[in-house]
Amino acid sequence: MSHRVLTGITTTGTLHLGNYVGAIRPAIEASRAAGVESFFFMADFHALIKCDEPARIAHSSRSIAATWLAAGLDPERVTFYRQSDIPEIPELTWLLTCVTAKGQMNRAHAYKAAVDAATAAGEDPDARVTMGLYSYPILMAADILMFNAHRVPVGKDQAQHIEMARDVAQRFNHLYGQGREFFTLPEAVIEASMELLPGLDGRKMSKSYDNVIPLFEGGAAALKDAVARIVTDSKLPGEPKDPEGQALVTIYDAFATPDQRASFRAALRGGLAWGEAKAQLVALIEGQIGPMRARYAALMANPAELEAVLQRGAAKARAMAAPLLAELRRAVGIGAFTAEAPKADAKTEKAALPVFKQYREADGRFYFKLVSATGELLLQSQAFEQGRDAGQWVARLKREGWLAEAPATLVADEAAVRAALAAFAEA
Amino acid sequence: MSHRVLTGITTTGTLHLGNYVGAIRPAIEASRAAGVESFFFMADFHALIKCDEPARIAHSSRSIAATWLAAGLDPERVTFYRQSDIPEIPELTWLLTCVTAKGQMNRAHAYKAAVDAATAAGEDPDARVTMGLYSYPILMAADILMFNAHRVPVGKDQAQHIEMARDVAQRFNHLYGQGREFFTLPEAVIEASMELLPGLDGRKMSKSYDNVIPLFEGGAAALKDAVARIVTDSKLPGEPKDPEGQALVTIYDAFATPDQRASFRAALRGGLAWGEAKAQLVALIEGQIGPMRARYAALMANPAELEAVLQRGAAKARAMAAPLLAELRRAVGIGAFTAEAPKADAKTEKAALPVFKQYREADGRFYFKLVSATGELLLQSQAFEQGRDAGQWVARLKREGWLAEAPATLVADEAAVRAALAAFAEA
Repeated sequence: MSHRVLTGITTTGTLHLGNYVGAIRPAIEASRAAGVESFFFMADFHALIKCDEPARIAHSSRSIAATWLAAGLDPERVTFYRQSDIPEIPELTWLLTCVTAKGQMNRAHAYKAAVDAATAAGEDPDARVTMGLYSYPILMAADILMFNAHRVPVGKDQAQHIEMARDVAQRFNHLYGQGREFFTLPEAVIEASMELLPGLDGRKMSKSYDNVIPLFEGGAAALKDAVARIVTDSKLPGEPKDPEGQALVTIYDAFATPDQRASFRAALRGGLAWGEAKAQLVALIEGQIGPMRARYAALMANPAELEAVLQRGAAKARAMAAPLLAELRRAVGIGAFTAEAPKADAKTEKAALPVFKQYREADGRFYFKLVSATGELLLQSQAFEQGRDAGQWVARLKREGWLAEAPATLVADEAAVRAALAAFAEA
Repeated sequence: MSHRVLTGITTTGTLHLGNYVGAIRPAIEASRAAGVESFFFMADFHALIKCDEPARIAHSSRSIAATWLAAGLDPERVTFYRQSDIPEIPELTWLLTCVTAKGQMNRAHAYKAAVDAATAAGEDPDARVTMGLYSYPILMAADILMFNAHRVPVGKDQAQHIEMARDVAQRFNHLYGQGREFFTLPEAVIEASMELLPGLDGRKMSKSYDNVIPLFEGGAAALKDAVARIVTDSKLPGEPKDPEGQALVTIYDAFATPDQRASFRAALRGGLAWGEAKAQLVALIEGQIGPMRARYAALMANPAELEAVLQRGAAKARAMAAPLLAELRRAVGIGAFTAEAPKADAKTEKAALPVFKQYREADGRFYFKLVSATGELLLQSQAFEQGRDAGQWVARLKREGWLAEAPATLVADEAAVRAALAAFAEA
């Protein structure tokens, strides 16, 4: 079976050259690999969490959809859809909501950051938190589990959400599966090696630094204007220049062949003027982006065509989502009366062991946790600098049972933790 | 325009004679009134919050649907549907989730009760709370607002949820309406005067007291058996009996005409044996329930017929829900690209006054709260025994601004509350 890879793009802005090099181009390349089934979606339900400007969300959705298609995404090969066109997703969100412990949401990084910010400002801890922000990991779990994605490329800050999606999937499988695994457990693919393009000032290209080179918006003129503003050293034409560490050169590299990279460097060392170097960079980028921009403009000018592409994508996505949701509905007991009735012993408890999980967080430190056979978090460790230390504590707890001095917090009550650990000692 | 009344029934059990007298019969009668448009739905998404037994939910949905129809609900006259057949409801739930402050959910009675129980047991406060329990008032708001219901008959414990639905409706209207009111503000109809049938032991008839008389299940034999177990005094046949305060008599009254009531009492005072009185009660109930039970059995034996009724109901409900949801999608910016685009000034702030609300809670005590023009809770009072005292504090705060000694808790930060109160002083 092929591997399913799922990518969502929150529709609150427009994309720049850094997004193209760091995310769009590699994702489109990956989608062409054999044995990969790719899902791309405009995450517009997610956009509502952080943006209450309808015009901005609407423009962003349209612009992002047109950008991916113009950049070469093949909607016949991949499944390309708008999240809000798939009613199965909010419905699955509710089913998952009912099997998610509130305690798990309390540990989400984004929520904790909002609480910390409010507390620091002397406000009520929840003053800056909407229920959208708080329960967003459940919607994200539904996005992933709806299509049983195997891999989800995410930034480090999102890795925890994939872990939460795994937990809720396990819990649902356990509660309702009767031995069946409805959901594949997804894995995060942390884009640590993602190519980060520098911006005009040499820092990472980012809207928040106001240092971006536009991808399509503003046409070739905007590209030229932005490149003209890339910061260089002040060496004069004819003076030899050191190409290393120059943002201009790094951006050039992102679009050049190895041969082009070598000759560009040689020319700079030989005294090529920065102005001329910028002209060469514009020509290089424009040679690749120019034809895409024409396609982008055509799609933006023809919303009906763009909409038709997304509607075909939605039909393809729903053809997968609807049968799975119908099964899930039957499994939880809310299907049609004429569907096969759930078996009366659906709730029979299984005698399964609790599980210790060891993992590394976005902060680079190591943790472990103890999760019951039914997927409930029982014990959460503190951070360890060394993975080995976490492993040694797990081994001790398995062997000796609960130890008050263990560097871990009881999430369930102590009796439940003791009982779970006793199961290891007996096994 | 007619008044819309909405009633949801959580599908986790089967209905008994007390439900029939206290809820089903009066609701069906009310649905026949002129100028009333009634909505009845099987709340199976809600059932998932408290029940993870699929077979139980499935049987309950079927049994409750058959019960309402057998009891005389006319599905052509009312809108009768299964909640989970309306995909617009979970989608609206997400839209409302994004405009709901987490602080508001923290104040929900059901959540606070679960936290108190866990804390009392020495557990983590959230140990017994799923996200389903926590966010259930938002789903309930979506149930109500989806059909712009004017009135929602609820028990006292649910009154707070209607208030929350009003708050979220106001907030959504304010954020996205641009002067348009998408949502009607619903009103709770507290069923204080609801006829409460006593159970076999004289306490309120309730599954949790194990004192119920079945409505349809078990046939006439089960009705007779249950009535035989109604507790009476031990007066012998021929001895005069005092009918007042007897559960048997109260149950008789619920099915009798005034004439029948008078002659039943006279017969008891004249020495009617309790055994004979019970036989008369069975005959009276069976005369009304018997024909319904035959219809109930026929519906339970024919799931396809029952399903067809609910599917017609779902089509009717969705014909109302889908156009409203399409408008809401456009308003928040997630509609189709070919739909009318939201205006760019959708976010223009309005200069509106904050609002003081005075109200009475289920505990019978009085409260006030201060809500900003955008629907955010700023200030929450403590409880007052007298409504007059709450009113006097409101008047003082309006006149004098924030007072540290006010018997109220700052929910927003103090500066925001001071600013809001200053608006009253200026007005």
